[in-house]
Amino acid sequence: MLIVIKSEEKQENVNKIKRKMKELGCEICEFKGQTYYLIGLVGDTSNIDPDLLNANENVEKIIHVQEPYKKVNRLFHPEDTIIDICGRKIGQGHFTVMAGPCSVESEEQIVSIAKEVKSAGASILRGGAFKPRTSPYSFQGMELDGLELLKLAKKETGLPIVTELMSPKYLDKFIDDVDIIQIGARNMQNFDLLKEVGMTKKAILLKRGMSATIQELLMAAEYIMSEGNENIILCERGIRTFEKYTRNTLDLSAIPVIKKHSHLPVIVDPSHAGGLWWLVEPLAKAALAVGADGLMVEVHNDPANAKCDGQQSLKPEKFKTLMNKLNKMLEIEDKKIG
Amino acid sequence: MLIVIKSEEKQENVNKIKRKMKELGCEICEFKGQTYYLIGLVGDTSNIDPDLLNANENVEKIIHVQEPYKKVNRLFHPEDTIIDICGRKIGQGHFTVMAGPCSVESEEQIVSIAKEVKSAGASILRGGAFKPRTSPYSFQGMELDGLELLKLAKKETGLPIVTELMSPKYLDKFIDDVDIIQIGARNMQNFDLLKEVGMTKKAILLKRGMSATIQELLMAAEYIMSEGNENIILCERGIRTFEKYTRNTLDLSAIPVIKKHSHLPVIVDPSHAGGLWWLVEPLAKAALAVGADGLMVEVHNDPANAKCDGQQSLKPEKFKTLMNKLNKMLEIEDKKIG
Amino acid sequence: MLIVIKSEEKQENVNKIKRKMKELGCEICEFKGQTYYLIGLVGDTSNIDPDLLNANENVEKIIHVQEPYKKVNRLFHPEDTIIDICGRKIGQGHFTVMAGPCSVESEEQIVSIAKEVKSAGASILRGGAFKPRTSPYSFQGMELDGLELLKLAKKETGLPIVTELMSPKYLDKFIDDVDIIQIGARNMQNFDLLKEVGMTKKAILLKRGMSATIQELLMAAEYIMSEGNENIILCERGIRTFEKYTRNTLDLSAIPVIKKHSHLPVIVDPSHAGGLWWLVEPLAKAALAVGADGLMVEVHNDPANAKCDGQQSLKPEKFKTLMNKLNKMLEIEDKKIG
Amino acid sequence: MLIVIKSEEKQENVNKIKRKMKELGCEICEFKGQTYYLIGLVGDTSNIDPDLLNANENVEKIIHVQEPYKKVNRLFHPEDTIIDICGRKIGQGHFTVMAGPCSVESEEQIVSIAKEVKSAGASILRGGAFKPRTSPYSFQGMELDGLELLKLAKKETGLPIVTELMSPKYLDKFIDDVDIIQIGARNMQNFDLLKEVGMTKKAILLKRGMSATIQELLMAAEYIMSEGNENIILCERGIRTFEKYTRNTLDLSAIPVIKKHSHLPVIVDPSHAGGLWWLVEPLAKAALAVGADGLMVEVHNDPANAKCDGQQSLKPEKFKTLMNKLNKMLEIEDKKIG
Repeated sequence: MLIVIKSEEKQENVNKIKRKMKELGCEICEFKGQTYYLIGLVGDTSNIDPDLLNANENVEKIIHVQEPYKKVNRLFHPEDTIIDICGRKIGQGHFTVMAGPCSVESEEQIVSIAKEVKSAGASILRGGAFKPRTSPYSFQGMELDGLELLKLAKKETGLPIVTELMSPKYLDKFIDDVDIIQIGARNMQNFDLLKEVGMTKKAILLKRGMSATIQELLMAAEYIMSEGNENIILCERGIRTFEKYTRNTLDLSAIPVIKKHSHLPVIVDPSHAGGLWWLVEPLAKAALAVGADGLMVEVHNDPANAKCDGQQSLKPEKFKTLMNKLNKMLEIEDKKIG
Repeated sequence: MLIVIKSEEKQENVNKIKRKMKELGCEICEFKGQTYYLIGLVGDTSNIDPDLLNANENVEKIIHVQEPYKKVNRLFHPEDTIIDICGRKIGQGHFTVMAGPCSVESEEQIVSIAKEVKSAGASILRGGAFKPRTSPYSFQGMELDGLELLKLAKKETGLPIVTELMSPKYLDKFIDDVDIIQIGARNMQNFDLLKEVGMTKKAILLKRGMSATIQELLMAAEYIMSEGNENIILCERGIRTFEKYTRNTLDLSAIPVIKKHSHLPVIVDPSHAGGLWWLVEPLAKAALAVGADGLMVEVHNDPANAKCDGQQSLKPEKFKTLMNKLNKMLEIEDKKIG
Repeated sequence: MLIVIKSEEKQENVNKIKRKMKELGCEICEFKGQTYYLIGLVGDTSNIDPDLLNANENVEKIIHVQEPYKKVNRLFHPEDTIIDICGRKIGQGHFTVMAGPCSVESEEQIVSIAKEVKSAGASILRGGAFKPRTSPYSFQGMELDGLELLKLAKKETGLPIVTELMSPKYLDKFIDDVDIIQIGARNMQNFDLLKEVGMTKKAILLKRGMSATIQELLMAAEYIMSEGNENIILCERGIRTFEKYTRNTLDLSAIPVIKKHSHLPVIVDPSHAGGLWWLVEPLAKAALAVGADGLMVEVHNDPANAKCDGQQSLKPEKFKTLMNKLNKMLEIEDKKIG
Repeated sequence: MLIVIKSEEKQENVNKIKRKMKELGCEICEFKGQTYYLIGLVGDTSNIDPDLLNANENVEKIIHVQEPYKKVNRLFHPEDTIIDICGRKIGQGHFTVMAGPCSVESEEQIVSIAKEVKSAGASILRGGAFKPRTSPYSFQGMELDGLELLKLAKKETGLPIVTELMSPKYLDKFIDDVDIIQIGARNMQNFDLLKEVGMTKKAILLKRGMSATIQELLMAAEYIMSEGNENIILCERGIRTFEKYTRNTLDLSAIPVIKKHSHLPVIVDPSHAGGLWWLVEPLAKAALAVGADGLMVEVHNDPANAKCDGQQSLKPEKFKTLMNKLNKMLEIEDKKIG
């Protein structure tokens, strides 16, 4: 961390800042330029709150040299993390496809879709029981009943299940019933929820918030890890920009950037990114090509009558075609789905 | 709501869509252009999920004519809503200033600042007990102890208190102890929390999410109102853009836009918007000029040693100067603080 | 185009608007809902300025059903446009790689890089002679001398050349010397320049502005086409968002969206998008996978001493590795480079 | 400027970088932390291209301590710049209102509006002769004829005129006929045009680009100043964000930020920012309150028949009301219009 002070600042004010830093246990380096005077803090400064320094009216600005995250930082953990979900590996060379409907609607619906996505090669079943909807008048999910139907579908197909947790009050239920707990984009900075799931041992699928920087996504993962849970899968699902043709702008550059800075696996959700079914295939292929560790894809047997997000769901046959194309691409990379 | 279909679409597909709309209870108008065929739905369509239609592959797009919110919509409630907080009115000509430290740090701190802001003219005391912080290693607030200190400060000064609720688990405590429950920007779409506070009768200060559109802010308020609670104060606090000099970009145009579309009062938080103390005064004055119903301002007696956000806090004497300037501006508008 | 008027509006005001529309030659449909009254204009409304209607204080808003572009619109020109550059085809199944240094620096540099990229499989040579730089103190390009060196490199290798035109004053020179005229992101809405190149027959590479919507990009192409030049290649090169790790956010969803709405070929510039050399390979592969018609890649033999943008340039050997990987991917798609 | 290198980097690579910096004439400071090694460059580094260093694969990143602009920087020019336009002062306590129609349409129109805005207190007449329009099919302005009409209006009223220059080919004409040359938002980084007007002595009104950072706006002004022209007025007119109710998001925080970092005067255009006439008054008042040096406001006698942007134009009587309100606000600040 570097503290920037105007060169003309009185020496006593500079000394006061230096003294304070030393009290906080920092070793100090100094550095005098023509217009600015720099004080560098050596060592681990992640416990020093930069707000403390910014508030000092003699400080021009604070410059961060080191990333604010530690446990998720590849610098201190060079090897890729691999997450194990009922024997299926996620990360480092494995390409995992999670697929299923936006929301669970009936036993018949979820079981039949589960069978379809399994036969096409998906290794994890997705399906929403609790749905975050922009309007209070939209379908909010089947809630606990939906969870029961997911368990049935798992029993029938053997596919582990991933579904979204929106409130700490159902956490115990999710720990019992679910294989991967999803934290949705809107809750990426619901710090209370992050701490709660951080205290479990469950695998967590953490989706990037619509306007979260990559650094903030990694800091949200740091919240979970700092409570002891290291089983985190990150998920890029599109960010909010000025562009209007697509619901969000899928930020595929985020994949190699995250892989450079963190050891956690990262997958892509091409369905929510564009919000349009005909964008799913090209974006899914691009996600594989850019180096993602997997995908989360919405599949529905009757999109036109889906209770939510039908416009971004693939029909099972289109999903099969996509899986075939992905398999061919993975062959070149010496990887396999699942 | 308008359904746009390509003119060359087969008549039977068009008929299928028309039949479905009629089943949902919609009256229909038709409209044939050269390249597109339009089906208009007459009446209240807020219960029709546009996803259902978007998923139909014969539908080119859906166009919304009417806003998706009802209870917060000025169209159906033309008069301004006025919120009463222990006898102080918020909205319609009253200009309310909520002031206090970012976080409660000690009895001495909160009581002395409460006295200072009261004497300068603030009518409500703000202070964080639970703090949403980007880093798990930053100060997270005094939590329940902080709430106790706020009550002490209220007892000493008579100022009603506003503070942020981050988790439903403390809701009962907040109902007992707090006058206005703040829902922070990061939780604006924490729908579970919105529903919970919607079932109370407490006044809610709902902050706009960092990347929330004005429509989404109004839909979040609709969540609260649809559960029965109509005591909502909206708050603009800056949105996320590409600009880097300021922490967020304060969207002051949002104030007249919200006032046109909704009857709810709306205030501005100039402290979080810019993230820099020297921006607070000009932005506060601009907020008044643009028509806001009040302000939420961070004030700290010792910003350089504040436990959080010191860099955006005003010292009490600067706050007094600001209040004097605001008073002069309000005189021209025939309004008063408080 | 739909004109939305409040239902309670006086009939005489509605009639005035209808009369005006008829004077402008529009056929009219009407449509009365509970809260709004809609007037639909049938036929080609692209000549009607919506500002005219928006300014009417009885008009609530204007809704556009049809896209504002005509000549670039796939609706009126369903087949892909193929551009011919000295016998090389761009568009519809051909995958074209344009490669070379950010800026021309010397004869030796440009000729040797031209040979390298040709032998690796590139079919067009890029190289900046005139450079748009954020700072007036940065290297501005070799200007006309750079153009001469590009011609030399073309003579040596046979590669057609693409380079950026920044001012109409050099247009004649560019028509003589250059095979593709590039209009840079910062000039995408320099309408004077667009009109000037629209009056030539040269192929134009039109880069998307940093904050241009896809619709605005297509409208910029419409400017060129409306003057008579139909030889346009579009280029996605990253848009400005809040994310800070990357210089821009590459919007790969734009490729399938553009292909749906327009018949023009579209390529991707992975070098400018991320601004970092280690992002070029993954983004280039993703661009191919998402369906782009080609790439524009910066290659430099000595990036650490390049006069500009060295940090985003690939060394020739890394470029060769990339081309090999792209070739393998193209095989699956039954396509070829060049 | 600080060069950040990983601590584990080989000493010889570090030495190579240090040697290169010394060759470029830089004095060097060093600084060794646990994970990073820092090399600081002392003195004026604005001539060192950071790309050169970023391209070095041993460099982790470059950190800028100093702003990249010099001539526009308040650090080196602490007093406010005042621009003189035919005896009217802009900057430092003067509040200047430029008003008039979006585009010049006829002699009668421009002369009558000029008289109206003059009598209401405006001191400069605006009016577009050349219009940058998103669509090639929209009205493009009366061009040179419009310029003649502006001159007539000036002759009738004595008001100096400001109008937009879109192409260097009319520069000489503008130098003769116009008092302030406007560079529009879309041309803010048309560097050729900036250099051209930089070589004149005319006052330049430089509008912020729709997606330009404040730093880029100041760098664009630096382009003009580096050619010798110091008569620059900056203009904030809204930036592009995700919000859809308003055309752009007016960034009023930019005003105090610009005033802190630069000595140039800065005005606000509330008409283009929101794109809606009913937003002009509140935004104009907010602009004054936040500290702007003036306004640019669109006024039209018949907005519903204006040839462009009628929806954002004020009628003369509404403009008068606005001017009265602004005058009252200025009294409190001990300032005057004009």
